[in-house]
Amino acid sequence: MQNTAPSAAIIIIGNEILSGRTQDKNVSFIATQLSDLGILLHEVRIIADIAETIGQVAREFSEKYDYVFTSGGIGPTHDDITAQSLADAFSIKVERNQEAFKLLNDYYQSKGRVLNVASSKMADIPEGCPLISNSVSAAPGFIVNNNIFVFAGVPNILQAMFKAIIPQLKTSQPFISKTLSLAVGESAIAQQLESVQNQYPLVIIGSYPGLTEEGHHMTSIVLRSNNHNDLHQSFTELDGLLQQFDRLV
Amino acid sequence: MQNTAPSAAIIIIGNEILSGRTQDKNVSFIATQLSDLGILLHEVRIIADIAETIGQVAREFSEKYDYVFTSGGIGPTHDDITAQSLADAFSIKVERNQEAFKLLNDYYQSKGRVLNVASSKMADIPEGCPLISNSVSAAPGFIVNNNIFVFAGVPNILQAMFKAIIPQLKTSQPFISKTLSLAVGESAIAQQLESVQNQYPLVIIGSYPGLTEEGHHMTSIVLRSNNHNDLHQSFTELDGLLQQFDRLV
Repeated sequence: MQNTAPSAAIIIIGNEILSGRTQDKNVSFIATQLSDLGILLHEVRIIADIAETIGQVAREFSEKYDYVFTSGGIGPTHDDITAQSLADAFSIKVERNQEAFKLLNDYYQSKGRVLNVASSKMADIPEGCPLISNSVSAAPGFIVNNNIFVFAGVPNILQAMFKAIIPQLKTSQPFISKTLSLAVGESAIAQQLESVQNQYPLVIIGSYPGLTEEGHHMTSIVLRSNNHNDLHQSFTELDGLLQQFDRLV
Repeated sequence: MQNTAPSAAIIIIGNEILSGRTQDKNVSFIATQLSDLGILLHEVRIIADIAETIGQVAREFSEKYDYVFTSGGIGPTHDDITAQSLADAFSIKVERNQEAFKLLNDYYQSKGRVLNVASSKMADIPEGCPLISNSVSAAPGFIVNNNIFVFAGVPNILQAMFKAIIPQLKTSQPFISKTLSLAVGESAIAQQLESVQNQYPLVIIGSYPGLTEEGHHMTSIVLRSNNHNDLHQSFTELDGLLQQFDRLV
């Protein structure tokens, strides 16, 4: 990809996804947000709750990409090992963060609940890591090695945390897409697609086959770029080349 | 994981997932199937449609895991580069596969359609790779380097292909899970969870916080293993330790 947009990757720490128990919802949320921010998502890894694996992937991604987002494993129970795993990977100590502790304590008091030993664990954060505010349930996320944004896995909390850090991200022109849906199988238009793709390397042209409600072959052609000029030109060109096929709405 | 179950990993070749346009459905399908077959899914990578990336991850996984499943990129258009990428990664030539060509040709004839140059591309398969039958739309998948199962990305076709190769997989005891849902926040039960987890290393105990419909804190505890004896014992033990909390159905 010849693209100068900031780069990003996602790490889903997720035994519950790998077991098939839970359908992940965080990838599509973050992917859509990044697209709107003009940040290019290069890859996603869904990994098991294993400290060495978490640390290894985080270090690799932190070096390779501008931004890394992790999902999951920052709650109060034995399977919440993200903070310690990342601390170990970057040789940082985990310590009781007084700011995080106050956030938690205030929240629990406001709910008339007691902050017990397990809940307090959510205030144990790798030393020196800035916090990410959690407007849903107080327990904060945090930023490791300047570019790893550590979020909770619960979708509405992750979404609140992501929104909180948006002002910190370098952005570029939003990626936008235009779709052309035709009442024809994709093999009939393969040549035209290839010719326009070769002409516009900054536009990613995807071809997705499907069936109409009546069972006829159809193709959705999706053009995507953050070079809006190239996007519109390539779309117009393709639209012209494919005049003879019926459009679907 | 101290587990002797066969191991697996998934590669989703998916610009359309990384852009946020499409919600992936193939991971949860394959994950659930593998779980029932007693095969442990270790990781998933969602990568862009880039030949070098596809080849690199495929080689790494083929060496590391018993089984690798790929999704996407085997259709007739310019963005379908999986066959060529894998062939390059394993130094195999892509050639017109006569068996695949006959399958396609028969299918197109039966539908009264013409097999054009682009569609014929779906019969170009890395040399010597066994085919995977496609009961939905004929164009076959294939097996590279003995353990990389190359599937289409369209969910109903992927599912048909997966079912076709099940008899070829080594299996073990199915992974099963038992869930205990309690009307209590997870921090209140963290200590009991940890103690049972330490006693049963072959059981993976996950703790997932949530809210009831009335907005009260609750926790789903999921115990998962393919050692059915340990699973039942650990469940009984945890159930006993957590007697004082209300069960949710």
